[in-house]
Amino acid sequence: MSLFESLKAGCSEEWRQYIEHDFVRQLGQGTLPKECFQHYLKQDYLFLIQFSRAWGLAIYKSDDLDSMRYAQSGLNAMLDTEIGMHVQYCRDWGIDEKTLNHLPEAAATVAYTRYVLDTGMAGDLLDLHVTLAPCILGYAEIAQWLAAQPDTVREGNPYNDWIEMYLSEEYREVAQTELELLEKLGADLPEPRLRQLQNRFRTATRMEVSFWQMGLDLTE
Amino acid sequence: MSLFESLKAGCSEEWRQYIEHDFVRQLGQGTLPKECFQHYLKQDYLFLIQFSRAWGLAIYKSDDLDSMRYAQSGLNAMLDTEIGMHVQYCRDWGIDEKTLNHLPEAAATVAYTRYVLDTGMAGDLLDLHVTLAPCILGYAEIAQWLAAQPDTVREGNPYNDWIEMYLSEEYREVAQTELELLEKLGADLPEPRLRQLQNRFRTATRMEVSFWQMGLDLTE
Amino acid sequence: MSLFESLKAGCSEEWRQYIEHDFVRQLGQGTLPKECFQHYLKQDYLFLIQFSRAWGLAIYKSDDLDSMRYAQSGLNAMLDTEIGMHVQYCRDWGIDEKTLNHLPEAAATVAYTRYVLDTGMAGDLLDLHVTLAPCILGYAEIAQWLAAQPDTVREGNPYNDWIEMYLSEEYREVAQTELELLEKLGADLPEPRLRQLQNRFRTATRMEVSFWQMGLDLTE
Amino acid sequence: MSLFESLKAGCSEEWRQYIEHDFVRQLGQGTLPKECFQHYLKQDYLFLIQFSRAWGLAIYKSDDLDSMRYAQSGLNAMLDTEIGMHVQYCRDWGIDEKTLNHLPEAAATVAYTRYVLDTGMAGDLLDLHVTLAPCILGYAEIAQWLAAQPDTVREGNPYNDWIEMYLSEEYREVAQTELELLEKLGADLPEPRLRQLQNRFRTATRMEVSFWQMGLDLTE
Repeated sequence: MSLFESLKAGCSEEWRQYIEHDFVRQLGQGTLPKECFQHYLKQDYLFLIQFSRAWGLAIYKSDDLDSMRYAQSGLNAMLDTEIGMHVQYCRDWGIDEKTLNHLPEAAATVAYTRYVLDTGMAGDLLDLHVTLAPCILGYAEIAQWLAAQPDTVREGNPYNDWIEMYLSEEYREVAQTELELLEKLGADLPEPRLRQLQNRFRTATRMEVSFWQMGLDLTE
Repeated sequence: MSLFESLKAGCSEEWRQYIEHDFVRQLGQGTLPKECFQHYLKQDYLFLIQFSRAWGLAIYKSDDLDSMRYAQSGLNAMLDTEIGMHVQYCRDWGIDEKTLNHLPEAAATVAYTRYVLDTGMAGDLLDLHVTLAPCILGYAEIAQWLAAQPDTVREGNPYNDWIEMYLSEEYREVAQTELELLEKLGADLPEPRLRQLQNRFRTATRMEVSFWQMGLDLTE
Repeated sequence: MSLFESLKAGCSEEWRQYIEHDFVRQLGQGTLPKECFQHYLKQDYLFLIQFSRAWGLAIYKSDDLDSMRYAQSGLNAMLDTEIGMHVQYCRDWGIDEKTLNHLPEAAATVAYTRYVLDTGMAGDLLDLHVTLAPCILGYAEIAQWLAAQPDTVREGNPYNDWIEMYLSEEYREVAQTELELLEKLGADLPEPRLRQLQNRFRTATRMEVSFWQMGLDLTE
Repeated sequence: MSLFESLKAGCSEEWRQYIEHDFVRQLGQGTLPKECFQHYLKQDYLFLIQFSRAWGLAIYKSDDLDSMRYAQSGLNAMLDTEIGMHVQYCRDWGIDEKTLNHLPEAAATVAYTRYVLDTGMAGDLLDLHVTLAPCILGYAEIAQWLAAQPDTVREGNPYNDWIEMYLSEEYREVAQTELELLEKLGADLPEPRLRQLQNRFRTATRMEVSFWQMGLDLTE
């Protein structure tokens, strides 16, 4: 079994709660309240800033140039493209940049991002990628799950852009490259190490569940 | 103004929400549902483990023996006394050690603890102590605030032990020593540094608010 | 007094030993043995890899996008340009890339690079920049010192390219931008913090002295 | 093959250079110049301070109480006993505490200690223990090697105390416990991880060689 399959198998219930979360379902059906999506978008902006720090950490944790350059491309994508696109997307949803720059981080945002950063710091590069996986690989899986659901609405769904972004060939490639790195770093692990990574992946997944829930509950 | 006063003044509303939180009020009045207190106790056990890691980080971050020995005494208090006392206290409330060892961390627990660890790692020893302050110094203030409230019930209140612990001379000394260290590390800071620390203290305080709320809501 | 002036004033003797080191003098006079320069170039390659990790650390240590983007541009300069130019320069001096990829790090290389990384990790972003300063700002000063020495030979000196690189307008701008950041992060520091930074800067400078000495002694 | 055997096999030549270094031989024969031993003792004091930070790091890197408590006992041994004994031992050799507190760290001291701390931070708990192993396990092996050499002088050798300390039952137990932890953390590693650890162990061993050489050369 691949590492990623084994990580998901170690928390199948939590993984399902994450992938099929009510926030995701309502988004797919186009019934998610606008303010929930806006709240999610705002916190996701803060998330991306911490995510950029995680790529910085991955560079620090690298011990060869190939490994550094992989993290560099993740960082550059974030700082040169993703954050700008997110700011534009937020603007389309009526959230201006000034608002973004003065937002307090919700506890759920702090929980997932700092869990990644602290676990990645305490562990090694593999721990960092294992805790990032629910985000990078999970979003690709969520988009595919949504696309396969009969009650997902594409046309006229105000959230269809979001679904398309994570269904796109471009995003699939990002996820595929990350998956390959994960599998390379995580080949042939001894059992206790695998269990440790499963625990960390489960906690990271639970923090993602809590991030969706924050969107639904509008928690700050 | 002392650093601690200045940190509190930078988030007076959040600080009040923390000190006078409904969880605290109900605990003082003896009306807090038992399961809320038990949930808090369980998560507090997981909190103490991460708190011990924070003392380890403080040792790593020290650049002289005095500074290391201060953190060492915090660590030893935690690992040799506090955690054992907490396990015993949990047992008194019907929570056995095996349960404690298999608990998943609530998002609110992850949020505060990893915020401390990550901010302490990214910043210096002062940042670490500033983010620990809402916990170490806040609990002393909470106990004193409770003791001063007319509707606080002491006799017959099942939570009176908890109040007494944080009112005790012993705990006051712990808090006083921590306060002195904080003031020493934080004397005469330039304005931008003070603002940065105020932001970090505010976020840490907000994470403490979210920790109390988790107790009330029984969130996992 | 600016922070950088104050850091240099705190170790004027060590700073002079660094700027006016025999390795530097002989390089300026064109009398440095070729194998010493080659040894320096080889270790400098390993140095650049660790230096890239330091930019990754600076990204991790940033708490806003401006700060991250500054470190990102340092990182990109390193990974996209500097290391490639260094590999080419090494080739011109008869050192092929395969050799570079199998070099053991000399103790002096480990000493300076890991001092930067560990001090930067234990301290905050300012500590990181203070320990990088002897390298980034020192090389600009060395080139200018060399250019001002009557016994420096420019024409026909096999090391003139090296001198020109660090005398260039382009490098001056890199150093100037770094200096401005250092002064911004280090404005109005309280006395004990300044003394701590002076100690760290002095050790970093001493490690740079030891790096030159390694070149002269051909130590591995 | 056990991990430790495999680490040594990956750098048998460097390991021999370390265990059988001239500093060690001359110490065993009682011919080591007094000032070399004094210089070593002084730098070893600075080494112990950084070593204590490494135990703090091990606590931070722990994810359960057993693991924390092992590092705590290493830390307490250092701060409560070892450093005090070392100060006393230095005094016996004519080096007073005030001198110790004002020593600049030699490059070789910085190189080994910061290599441990940075590699331990970038990697996980196993990387930290692998880079500590040349020190903790190597000193036991050095004492045993010395005891087995025909030209080692015990009676009347001014350095016999040093040999006895690392030959003692007490020290053997420290080394044995560390070895068991190393083997537990390092069981059944995949090949690429083993090679990575071998590289790190080799560099750490080379830094130990450079530490002995600093003693012989009186380098600062």
